[in-house]
Amino acid sequence: MIPNLPSKTIERLSQYRRILSSCKEQGKTHIYSHELASLLNNTAVQVRRDIMLIGHVGTLRKGYDILELLNRIGEIIDSEDVLKVALVGVGKLGEAILSYFTGKNTKIKIVACFDVDPNKTGKEIGGIKCYPQYNLKEITKRENISIGILTVPNNVASDVANLLIEAGIKGILNYTSTHISVPENIYLEKYDMVTSIEKVAYFVKHS
Amino acid sequence: MIPNLPSKTIERLSQYRRILSSCKEQGKTHIYSHELASLLNNTAVQVRRDIMLIGHVGTLRKGYDILELLNRIGEIIDSEDVLKVALVGVGKLGEAILSYFTGKNTKIKIVACFDVDPNKTGKEIGGIKCYPQYNLKEITKRENISIGILTVPNNVASDVANLLIEAGIKGILNYTSTHISVPENIYLEKYDMVTSIEKVAYFVKHS
Repeated sequence: MIPNLPSKTIERLSQYRRILSSCKEQGKTHIYSHELASLLNNTAVQVRRDIMLIGHVGTLRKGYDILELLNRIGEIIDSEDVLKVALVGVGKLGEAILSYFTGKNTKIKIVACFDVDPNKTGKEIGGIKCYPQYNLKEITKRENISIGILTVPNNVASDVANLLIEAGIKGILNYTSTHISVPENIYLEKYDMVTSIEKVAYFVKHS
Repeated sequence: MIPNLPSKTIERLSQYRRILSSCKEQGKTHIYSHELASLLNNTAVQVRRDIMLIGHVGTLRKGYDILELLNRIGEIIDSEDVLKVALVGVGKLGEAILSYFTGKNTKIKIVACFDVDPNKTGKEIGGIKCYPQYNLKEITKRENISIGILTVPNNVASDVANLLIEAGIKGILNYTSTHISVPENIYLEKYDMVTSIEKVAYFVKHS
């Protein structure tokens, strides 16, 4: 049984997994909640609550079994089938995401990218085939792609999002600074670099 | 008097500002809380609460005065003096951030970037001068830079963060997937692309 978890919990589970994987690579077999917490600027109470929520327990003496916890988080976060992702707009940010993400998660795969520039289409970029943007809807449908990453210029963000939704996409990760509207059944995650820098600036100013 | 606000509120104020600016450019003078909310997939109650918190009120008939609200948010979020930012690691992501952020906020300015590649140093990248990374500490101190953006390879992220802190930086925006530890007086904001995609994937899988 997979529980329905809040978005912030998923975010933390994903972060725990990345830390646990690197601990495992370093030959560690167990980890305490307070160790995991300190690596994430989080509290041990929060870590224990999250991990209890997915039905896993550690021991007082040795902490969590890293391999067991990794498997359990995988059961929660990963799909059984591979989820296919398309990236639209292969500018600098798009390229950075393509090369960064490749190989990081075996259950989520960027299978196509799209651009309007004929110098990019037909080639592989970061190992991913680049298609002309006018084929977006057709290929997204044909390949059964369920997630779209938007790294297009702001002025076309809404149009491209609509095309993706018409093609059957279920989730969008919006890196543009355009606010796009999506139907209720589409999951939208937004990331805005200006907001992040303004946040840091606010706290620096008040420190 | 500037209140001390939670980080999530700052994030939303920064987003309101971006929407209000684009409404202003379109010639709009007033906006209702529910309009602002719908543009952000937020609730009108949340919008009213945030805006009340910074001591601003709208009218029932016309909503918020866009210009007044923009000024008030600016008083809260912006510094009186320009905050200087350095970006370290001019790969694809670094370059994308440099060209994306330039000109987006007049009170926060990326004044320097650093890289180890001699083909990049000495040049301007996205309009920002690129210095050799061995000058990081010296230039950060001399220029009185208070925020660092980390877009270096994972294996050097901790070392570079330490150098920045030694040079007197007060806030770090970490785009690497390395978990860095900072002293309590340093504000750390972290962004991990893999986490964002995994979050979207989780909700797509459960939809």
